Amino acid sequence: MSGNTLGKLFCVTNFGESHGPAIGAVVDGCPPGLALSEADIQLELDRRRPGTSRHVTQRQEPDQVEILSGVYEGVTTGTPISLLIRNADARSKDYSNIADTFRPGHADYTYWRKFTERDPRGGGRSSARLTAPTVAAGAIAKKWLAQVHGTQVRGYMSQLGPIAIPFLSWDEVANNPFYAPNAQVVPELEAYMDGLRRDGDSIGARIEVHAQNVPAGWGEPLYDRLDADIAHVMMGLNAVKGVSIGAGFDCIAQRGSEHGDEITPDGFLSNHAGGVLGGISSGQDITVSLAIKPTSSIRVERKSINRAGEPVQVQTLGRHDPCVGIRATPIAEAMLALVLMDHALRHRAQCG
Amino acid sequence: MSGNTLGKLFCVTNFGESHGPAIGAVVDGCPPGLALSEADIQLELDRRRPGTSRHVTQRQEPDQVEILSGVYEGVTTGTPISLLIRNADARSKDYSNIADTFRPGHADYTYWRKFTERDPRGGGRSSARLTAPTVAAGAIAKKWLAQVHGTQVRGYMSQLGPIAIPFLSWDEVANNPFYAPNAQVVPELEAYMDGLRRDGDSIGARIEVHAQNVPAGWGEPLYDRLDADIAHVMMGLNAVKGVSIGAGFDCIAQRGSEHGDEITPDGFLSNHAGGVLGGISSGQDITVSLAIKPTSSIRVERKSINRAGEPVQVQTLGRHDPCVGIRATPIAEAMLALVLMDHALRHRAQCG
Amino acid sequence: MSGNTLGKLFCVTNFGESHGPAIGAVVDGCPPGLALSEADIQLELDRRRPGTSRHVTQRQEPDQVEILSGVYEGVTTGTPISLLIRNADARSKDYSNIADTFRPGHADYTYWRKFTERDPRGGGRSSARLTAPTVAAGAIAKKWLAQVHGTQVRGYMSQLGPIAIPFLSWDEVANNPFYAPNAQVVPELEAYMDGLRRDGDSIGARIEVHAQNVPAGWGEPLYDRLDADIAHVMMGLNAVKGVSIGAGFDCIAQRGSEHGDEITPDGFLSNHAGGVLGGISSGQDITVSLAIKPTSSIRVERKSINRAGEPVQVQTLGRHDPCVGIRATPIAEAMLALVLMDHALRHRAQCG
Amino acid sequence: MSGNTLGKLFCVTNFGESHGPAIGAVVDGCPPGLALSEADIQLELDRRRPGTSRHVTQRQEPDQVEILSGVYEGVTTGTPISLLIRNADARSKDYSNIADTFRPGHADYTYWRKFTERDPRGGGRSSARLTAPTVAAGAIAKKWLAQVHGTQVRGYMSQLGPIAIPFLSWDEVANNPFYAPNAQVVPELEAYMDGLRRDGDSIGARIEVHAQNVPAGWGEPLYDRLDADIAHVMMGLNAVKGVSIGAGFDCIAQRGSEHGDEITPDGFLSNHAGGVLGGISSGQDITVSLAIKPTSSIRVERKSINRAGEPVQVQTLGRHDPCVGIRATPIAEAMLALVLMDHALRHRAQCG
Repeated sequence: MSGNTLGKLFCVTNFGESHGPAIGAVVDGCPPGLALSEADIQLELDRRRPGTSRHVTQRQEPDQVEILSGVYEGVTTGTPISLLIRNADARSKDYSNIADTFRPGHADYTYWRKFTERDPRGGGRSSARLTAPTVAAGAIAKKWLAQVHGTQVRGYMSQLGPIAIPFLSWDEVANNPFYAPNAQVVPELEAYMDGLRRDGDSIGARIEVHAQNVPAGWGEPLYDRLDADIAHVMMGLNAVKGVSIGAGFDCIAQRGSEHGDEITPDGFLSNHAGGVLGGISSGQDITVSLAIKPTSSIRVERKSINRAGEPVQVQTLGRHDPCVGIRATPIAEAMLALVLMDHALRHRAQCG
Repeated sequence: MSGNTLGKLFCVTNFGESHGPAIGAVVDGCPPGLALSEADIQLELDRRRPGTSRHVTQRQEPDQVEILSGVYEGVTTGTPISLLIRNADARSKDYSNIADTFRPGHADYTYWRKFTERDPRGGGRSSARLTAPTVAAGAIAKKWLAQVHGTQVRGYMSQLGPIAIPFLSWDEVANNPFYAPNAQVVPELEAYMDGLRRDGDSIGARIEVHAQNVPAGWGEPLYDRLDADIAHVMMGLNAVKGVSIGAGFDCIAQRGSEHGDEITPDGFLSNHAGGVLGGISSGQDITVSLAIKPTSSIRVERKSINRAGEPVQVQTLGRHDPCVGIRATPIAEAMLALVLMDHALRHRAQCG
Repeated sequence: MSGNTLGKLFCVTNFGESHGPAIGAVVDGCPPGLALSEADIQLELDRRRPGTSRHVTQRQEPDQVEILSGVYEGVTTGTPISLLIRNADARSKDYSNIADTFRPGHADYTYWRKFTERDPRGGGRSSARLTAPTVAAGAIAKKWLAQVHGTQVRGYMSQLGPIAIPFLSWDEVANNPFYAPNAQVVPELEAYMDGLRRDGDSIGARIEVHAQNVPAGWGEPLYDRLDADIAHVMMGLNAVKGVSIGAGFDCIAQRGSEHGDEITPDGFLSNHAGGVLGGISSGQDITVSLAIKPTSSIRVERKSINRAGEPVQVQTLGRHDPCVGIRATPIAEAMLALVLMDHALRHRAQCG
Repeated sequence: MSGNTLGKLFCVTNFGESHGPAIGAVVDGCPPGLALSEADIQLELDRRRPGTSRHVTQRQEPDQVEILSGVYEGVTTGTPISLLIRNADARSKDYSNIADTFRPGHADYTYWRKFTERDPRGGGRSSARLTAPTVAAGAIAKKWLAQVHGTQVRGYMSQLGPIAIPFLSWDEVANNPFYAPNAQVVPELEAYMDGLRRDGDSIGARIEVHAQNVPAGWGEPLYDRLDADIAHVMMGLNAVKGVSIGAGFDCIAQRGSEHGDEITPDGFLSNHAGGVLGGISSGQDITVSLAIKPTSSIRVERKSINRAGEPVQVQTLGRHDPCVGIRATPIAEAMLALVLMDHALRHRAQCG
């Protein structure tokens, strides 16, 4: 009930806290017969892993996944797949001060207002660390989608703070720590991040996620539209403040004669719709944009209050991502894959 | 399963087609003891009703609601509230041509790809007419939220195509057919719409929805965050291509020292978060923005195909909104109210 | 949330009160392409209808169903099918006394304890009248199961109070008002009921429901087993106090060497399992038994209390079934069909 | 989707296979603020544990539970509680023959028909071993119910094969391995089991579960009635073939003037209803009976087929419970506690 399960037919239940013994997920609803190993999942976890460049948190977590169930002799059996990741590098002392005060822009305050009891170590349940189980589950969805439908889900960073990153090539994305599809802009991104780190500040980013080879017909109108479910998972990611599909906010100033994608016997002539019409996939690429806010854990001093309601100055030390957007690309890919797989199964339930 | 139910504890199941005998909703989960009459609901339906100005569709629908169950002697009983709205002004002849061809940008094509069978009259199930039952259900949520928590949900149009509408006053919103919070810009909006109608074209819009007096603590991390559920319902509205909360896409270029809302004993000093932190309400106003695409049913000729896959020129006559954004404000308000009420009940289930 | 929706993929949302304006159901998740008319549904409603013999309530309800949505040109479209039944013969005066006092064995008391507000007319929401929408929805499931899988669901009465009814033939079931599979015992049943009516008392009954041609493989272990979901819907019927599958309570005294159904290349040699092993259908007939309690609305005087907690003598006049079991057969069939259809869709989602 | 989650607000997701690395459950929806330790849960696991008498399976499993999340400094935080139990005594060789043949009465056959792929070791997912995570989750529900509502859930065996066990005292239940509420009958039970073991056969049993101090008003009509949900979980237990509430199948021969429990200002005069009227708790004790079939893994030779469809003789060696009913009492208690807690939360969501 506290909302830790995603999906209706391909269900991911996420558990854990940043500095507890372990984090993980139970994936229920994976069809039997999919070849699946820990290596398949590790691949995606490694893309999200902290500590891999100087631009992200220096917490060292191997994020090694163990499959506890649902796979027998290397093949899924249709029963729940339980994924376990032990927390390795928990340094709770770094966070002792945050048990009593609230970081501006952070979930500290609202968790306290909601639950009264909370695990404050490393942000506890609200930590971006909890995206790891999501990525692990997403790896299963990605593999199934690729094998059964030839669907490919991938993403990139299109903006870091003030720096727009023009799309050049998918091939560049894996070559830099930013998931930037453009090698030329990387030095500028690195310089910007180095300056930011010196300032003890943080910055926002914009991420694009695309899915190719999505069959037409996925999505359940009226309410559980494919785009609605995409918006749900994306806005459900830590730090996301905006989600758009296709033309997104640009559609406001478009006329119908410009926005509506014309169709020919050879296919659509444009993709302002972002692959979704009336909540159902059209067969075109699904294109999603995310706005990711700057991290709230910064060294810059800020005004806040403590649990007693008294004014305090908050300065957050410890290990934090100065731009959570940098590691967001594989997470957003996982999210899109999870939604697509859920709708793939829903579609075959209803339409055979 | 085909996704026509919204909410986990306050559940709205929507049914009907644009030109079938009736549309409606079953609302399950309303607490007993709320005074409720058809007039309470009619008030909101009348705000959404077509045919009330020259700038919207000229279809004449009284949208008169009948409560079939769940209310006894003017008070809710805790059992399902069934809401029925008969379709009155169905002119199916206007739409005979669209059974065989697909309007660019319209759900015609994807419904056909998904279901094979579909009711093409007036867009059938994909028609914006199906937002009426949502509005009716939202009226119940609005009333309950106001009475139990003093929560007020309201919205306005902030942009019509190229014309930005600066916010002046909530008091102006009800005084013009655009839900514009600014009387001075109304003549410009009217002139723009008149020109658009002459061109037979359509245009996008931007809508803002706010909720005041939302208690801190609503929202269920990890996945069913309050903002995630808001994004779900808003992107689930016809024609919406983007949703943002608080600073939205502006957060990309913000630094953490600017974005994170400082807190003092007297409250927050800004609201870039839009009232949600870590997926949980903070007690600040919840602020949501929607990007609404231009209507796809336009008189301008466009390239498309028919069911046989042959190229055709499509020109859509009949009665259509040239800007669905104009009637979107009360619909978006209803959606926000539905999410808030669902989370109010979820919160009291878990936290008492 | 108040639990008025049945099924995960084939979802039935039930609404209405016994003496309100209407009752009905919204059926969401029916695959597109099924030929469906009001006559298909009326057939089953007529089997359940009151007032058709002297042994059931004399309330005259045509129970005429109107399909409001989801069917276009006689074929389902995959969108919600809304079913409306207007209440015709509501005589609220008969029930004026029960607003203040509680019938022993009746839901009067618990509805009042739960909701405080309730519609007391004719039992309001707790009336057996609300099984009509379930039967209407079940008619759709029955038709789909028969067409797609050749599955046949049917039932009979096996005991009326002290009178056991030996099974002779399915052909007899439709020939008497008791759904007895045995013509010889009918005079005895009639005499028993006549005596009971003179006494102003009521009696229990036992119903059997079978499903033939259920493919092996339906059912979702661990918790949503096919037998678990059957037990859920059956115990969810008004007046049911016991549910069993296959050998049922007789299995207590059986040895494993007797109970376990042996298998040969030609099939199973017995069916103690009742067609379900480990929560999954085996391909054998599914056999379910229900224990139905006697009606609590009787003319015999009984001790009770009123809303003020004072002792009263309660004697219930008005029109009531002296044995709700008599009309229970078509209702139980509908319930079994609804569960089977839901699991048919779940199965094809997961296993293709 | 494959149905491994129980509950709507207090949600238990079960994972694992009998001879995989681990089994466990994620419990989502536990209110914050409950004192909870591993010892609280171990207490209940130890009551269910195998190998504690000669009458149950000799598999040695410590069933030691580890809490991975959701508890901070000994108190629940409202986030998912993940419970992990490592499998210790897996001897897969014992089961090598069952990968290819199907035990009569066992889920072997239906799992194969459904999933094609399955883990055959020790029954894999269909093993009664998977009731351990349910018991662990139930321990949390039991503690919360006791603390918040004073509700007590307990059970006993009322029949072992042909031997009825008259109820004498709750105090005796913990004093013998059968959960028999009667010390005098224990020698007879032991002798019966010893004979059965010599025969290599198995036997059924009947279990009673009661809940005291359940507040009136829990349960959601129409479909998710309290008794319906109880029937769902109980029939969802391995080996259960029948469930009844209150008078159960005895109600068939009862008249309304006998069955309906009279009410006085001092309370009800009887409890044929078993504490539930119209699907809602009445405040009386909730009384449930279960019929548990004999184990299908027996040494007696039986006719069956193999995966190629050829006839075989099956004789099951290895370690098995000759009467799964013997260990069923704590499991059934857990199930009842889980349903009650779910409805407690549902009730406070809707009725405050």
